[in-house]
Amino acid sequence: MLGYMPKTAVLLIDCPDRRGIVAAIANFLVREYDANILNADQHQDVELGLFFMRVEFSTENTACSEDQFRQVFASLAGEFRMNWRLIFATPPANVAVFVSHYLHCLADLLDRYQIGELNCNLSLIVSNHEGARALAGFHGVPFHYIPATAGNKAATEKQQLNLLAEHQIDLVVLARYMQVLSPSFVSVYPQQIINVHHSFLPAFTGAKPYHAAFARGVKLIGATSHYVTEVLDEGPIIEQDVTRISQNDQLPDLIQKGRDLERLVLSRAVRWHLGHRILSYANKTVIFA
Amino acid sequence: MLGYMPKTAVLLIDCPDRRGIVAAIANFLVREYDANILNADQHQDVELGLFFMRVEFSTENTACSEDQFRQVFASLAGEFRMNWRLIFATPPANVAVFVSHYLHCLADLLDRYQIGELNCNLSLIVSNHEGARALAGFHGVPFHYIPATAGNKAATEKQQLNLLAEHQIDLVVLARYMQVLSPSFVSVYPQQIINVHHSFLPAFTGAKPYHAAFARGVKLIGATSHYVTEVLDEGPIIEQDVTRISQNDQLPDLIQKGRDLERLVLSRAVRWHLGHRILSYANKTVIFA
Amino acid sequence: MLGYMPKTAVLLIDCPDRRGIVAAIANFLVREYDANILNADQHQDVELGLFFMRVEFSTENTACSEDQFRQVFASLAGEFRMNWRLIFATPPANVAVFVSHYLHCLADLLDRYQIGELNCNLSLIVSNHEGARALAGFHGVPFHYIPATAGNKAATEKQQLNLLAEHQIDLVVLARYMQVLSPSFVSVYPQQIINVHHSFLPAFTGAKPYHAAFARGVKLIGATSHYVTEVLDEGPIIEQDVTRISQNDQLPDLIQKGRDLERLVLSRAVRWHLGHRILSYANKTVIFA
Amino acid sequence: MLGYMPKTAVLLIDCPDRRGIVAAIANFLVREYDANILNADQHQDVELGLFFMRVEFSTENTACSEDQFRQVFASLAGEFRMNWRLIFATPPANVAVFVSHYLHCLADLLDRYQIGELNCNLSLIVSNHEGARALAGFHGVPFHYIPATAGNKAATEKQQLNLLAEHQIDLVVLARYMQVLSPSFVSVYPQQIINVHHSFLPAFTGAKPYHAAFARGVKLIGATSHYVTEVLDEGPIIEQDVTRISQNDQLPDLIQKGRDLERLVLSRAVRWHLGHRILSYANKTVIFA
Repeated sequence: MLGYMPKTAVLLIDCPDRRGIVAAIANFLVREYDANILNADQHQDVELGLFFMRVEFSTENTACSEDQFRQVFASLAGEFRMNWRLIFATPPANVAVFVSHYLHCLADLLDRYQIGELNCNLSLIVSNHEGARALAGFHGVPFHYIPATAGNKAATEKQQLNLLAEHQIDLVVLARYMQVLSPSFVSVYPQQIINVHHSFLPAFTGAKPYHAAFARGVKLIGATSHYVTEVLDEGPIIEQDVTRISQNDQLPDLIQKGRDLERLVLSRAVRWHLGHRILSYANKTVIFA
Repeated sequence: MLGYMPKTAVLLIDCPDRRGIVAAIANFLVREYDANILNADQHQDVELGLFFMRVEFSTENTACSEDQFRQVFASLAGEFRMNWRLIFATPPANVAVFVSHYLHCLADLLDRYQIGELNCNLSLIVSNHEGARALAGFHGVPFHYIPATAGNKAATEKQQLNLLAEHQIDLVVLARYMQVLSPSFVSVYPQQIINVHHSFLPAFTGAKPYHAAFARGVKLIGATSHYVTEVLDEGPIIEQDVTRISQNDQLPDLIQKGRDLERLVLSRAVRWHLGHRILSYANKTVIFA
Repeated sequence: MLGYMPKTAVLLIDCPDRRGIVAAIANFLVREYDANILNADQHQDVELGLFFMRVEFSTENTACSEDQFRQVFASLAGEFRMNWRLIFATPPANVAVFVSHYLHCLADLLDRYQIGELNCNLSLIVSNHEGARALAGFHGVPFHYIPATAGNKAATEKQQLNLLAEHQIDLVVLARYMQVLSPSFVSVYPQQIINVHHSFLPAFTGAKPYHAAFARGVKLIGATSHYVTEVLDEGPIIEQDVTRISQNDQLPDLIQKGRDLERLVLSRAVRWHLGHRILSYANKTVIFA
Repeated sequence: MLGYMPKTAVLLIDCPDRRGIVAAIANFLVREYDANILNADQHQDVELGLFFMRVEFSTENTACSEDQFRQVFASLAGEFRMNWRLIFATPPANVAVFVSHYLHCLADLLDRYQIGELNCNLSLIVSNHEGARALAGFHGVPFHYIPATAGNKAATEKQQLNLLAEHQIDLVVLARYMQVLSPSFVSVYPQQIINVHHSFLPAFTGAKPYHAAFARGVKLIGATSHYVTEVLDEGPIIEQDVTRISQNDQLPDLIQKGRDLERLVLSRAVRWHLGHRILSYANKTVIFA
């Protein structure tokens, strides 16, 4: 009986821009799977001559699986030189959250998870401090304390990577995690690590951005969520937001107002990633939201 | 030689939502016109079961005209029960602006027109006051003073309608025009009259919205641009924006801050309309921006 | 020894606007208490001829108490016909939070309380549902389940009022509490009950504002925190915020985006109230933030 | 008879923070001039131990002039080591606007001037292009074309400075003026030259900020108005604003959306400066708005 329930999937594509792509994909899905296209969005990068598409569709064709799709889609994908991914709605992604001292982003993500905003399994919370253990426990998420002492970065990261592999983690969220990940760590999870930086990037990269913003006398402060790449604070930006400050706002006020921004931009990035709404290329992102 | 230059056109469609629409349209454009789809956006209203699409395409097929399109598209349009419009990029729309005392929106529109932001012929400025004559003259736009004395509304509107017909006006912009248009006037230009109301609708409908906002003690004031329908302030909303106010802002400050919003929401609405980026249905708008 | 520690207090004043008020108050505080004025803000309502002031000061004068202040300030207060309140920084206010089904505002307030954003004792969580019990327990805040069955409103409110009295509650926060409080309940806590309404008031008063916003086709949705008065949704507005929506946002998206606004406007209102930064008059608020 | 009309003046003060300042100033104004304090705002920089105040007052005392004030205020100013300025509401400031190719900020300022938003004499428009001549003429503002050919900067600036001196200019507004002013020019008008930079400073300093923002893939673009100092783009920030962009926005869209920000942040800065609402120190600004 289950075989007759429609499956929902997202197809993400990028390829050189050419006439006929939209029609070709729409035809393919209807012809092969009698698919119902629930949502289709595309984007062209005119300058680079690239085409991006996100198609969400449902089908009652029980044959449709990732392997089977790969076979029947191969010829079309080759013809248009597509990079593509097909993601079925179930099972949801496994997510690990890394935190340090500040827990407001974690608490926010956990509450959103609780009320159903985040379509995932929150599998794991990892921290170099003990502070988050109780919160993790309350939400029933396994907590792992992995201290980050100087000189043991390689060992620490090995331990972390083992945990991630063991839990088959699909997405790592750095929710104000104050350690820099090594390039070799990052290379294991390309476009699968999301960080929140507490400034409006590219302004105020590096440490203590609120201090820097306060010193420069800006009239708005910001926060940025982005994919982590080898170069700190330089990965593709997913989301940014800002809020107004005034001379009445001292440094602690900036930090407090900034927390509100951090919660928002990080949770939006995580939700969009989990909904397969982000395509990343040329150090930019296309958001199908 | 001109025949070989690619033509650019926008196809706007709404119809009941059904699988296969996107593919059918894309196929049609490629098959009939070897069209290059420059941009395609669609939207579903899940609740009402409606589908909306905007396709911008170019073609070198010299046969492509509105009449010829109507013929070859008829069968497909019938099959999917489409409402549709095809608009060629040239010639641009003819626009009339109606104003009264306050000229900031007019001055803003004229400057945007001057620097090429508005793809139209600004054909006509109509006012029930003489105040705009010099500004119109400076920009070389014909100005018509039509007084609006009590009891002569029908005569006034007849004069206005004659002017609009004579100039083949496609869009009427009410840029803080303080007279209410009669239903019979409005019915001549459905979805072709854009008004700016100086509040965040549906709050503070009617006269003196800034006074009402001040009295209620709101913390943000807004402005709204919308298509004009028979019922005052009730037409489909095109754009809204807000700005923060504080207790330091007295009524004149609200009015001054509000002007900034009025300029923005009206000019965006006009630009989107001229770019055929608005589809209106069920007293709402879909914006393909 | 404690006597030598400086005390911090906030003096809130409103009175008819007259020349000499600022000087009179500043002189008084320096003369009587050798006070250090940490912060002084004032506001005039020109139309109503009213003057508002918030002065935050510290003093090492051990004589300074509320009773003693009342005596020595009496003559000045009488001369200027002041309404005034003196609030010492310690002890902090006792706060009760009322909730129903939706717990995102409560969870947000609890996290902010945890990290020190809210200067208060969170004494009590009251709900007509059991859903918040675990969350309250985790944060160590007493939880009281008081069912709200039809026809027992008077009894329910009596039980609630008894609890509030028993815990000497200074502020009641309605964090998406879905029951309407009776005028007699409200009259016990004038300007001491803060509600969050999930619309940009005065648009969409009453039930199901997101549904109404969706139906009207607005381009921004909002949320409002306000003091509760006898008339539903009509009390003095404390804070409002909005966020942009698009045609891609269905009703559940409005509700989700709205939750972010509700958390922000409610927590700001609570924080300002606890910092004695709000003066309310003529159904408006003056915010000294 | 004129002597009995109340004069309005603004007193701007900065000095080391000390108890008693507010009372001392308020007492002085009442005692000396029987002044009516229309508005008083103060700000403390806690870190630097500085105090800032803006007092707007009216008086019917005909003796009150800048010279007389200097004499009677000397002792108090000395006691508190104040920097101070007294500015009478009349006559308004003389303003010169410098422009190059892009005229949207100039057009915006002229319209605001026309409708009374800017309390000044717009005395002079200077450009290294002829493009603004007609616009200046329409508004009746003298226009001076001063070409900026390579190698003649010193001569150009001398010509400009002569013009400014001749017209007794109090404020120079760089409304997208594409030439860099020399340090010696800037030193003649400290805190009297306002520039608009088309980015959210400190991000994207230097030339072509919209190109840089587009390349980096930011999700918001900004604009900044600031006082000009010797170091390009490093002066005290007066106002900033941002707007959201998406992948649909190509470079021309960024430039178009950016123009809206430029108009807003520049006009606010000019209005605040003309209202004597800006105090600048330590490369920051305090805005009494």
